[in-house]
Amino acid sequence: MCETKVYIEKDGKKEEILENVINIQSEEDGLLLKDLFGEQKLVKANIKYIDFMKHEMVLTESENDK
Amino acid sequence: MCETKVYIEKDGKKEEILENVINIQSEEDGLLLKDLFGEQKLVKANIKYIDFMKHEMVLTESENDK
Repeated sequence: MCETKVYIEKDGKKEEILENVINIQSEEDGLLLKDLFGEQKLVKANIKYIDFMKHEMVLTESENDK
Repeated sequence: MCETKVYIEKDGKKEEILENVINIQSEEDGLLLKDLFGEQKLVKANIKYIDFMKHEMVLTESENDK
């Protein structure tokens, strides 16, 4: 199984926001994360990196530069 | 194992660009994909969605709107 733990980077620190994520979708206003249990979370963030071996994804907060 | 197949969407069709991807990193000028065998590919694209259960990631070509 490939569920992934998603973190957001704030002030140089990683904060966990959702685990067991199985699906991520780019939306107009952010990234929509879905976990194994149906929970959804929309975060205003961009993907910094994904490590599929560590099952880890790190996001950065999106700036209002769009 | 969680290697992922990466596609890019062009004219509504999915084209495979790299498989066995284990790491993805956001760079200034695109997304840097790395596969299990050390191959790297930099693509000017954005992530549309990632399906961790299907081991599938779909990108869209980035427009010159930055």
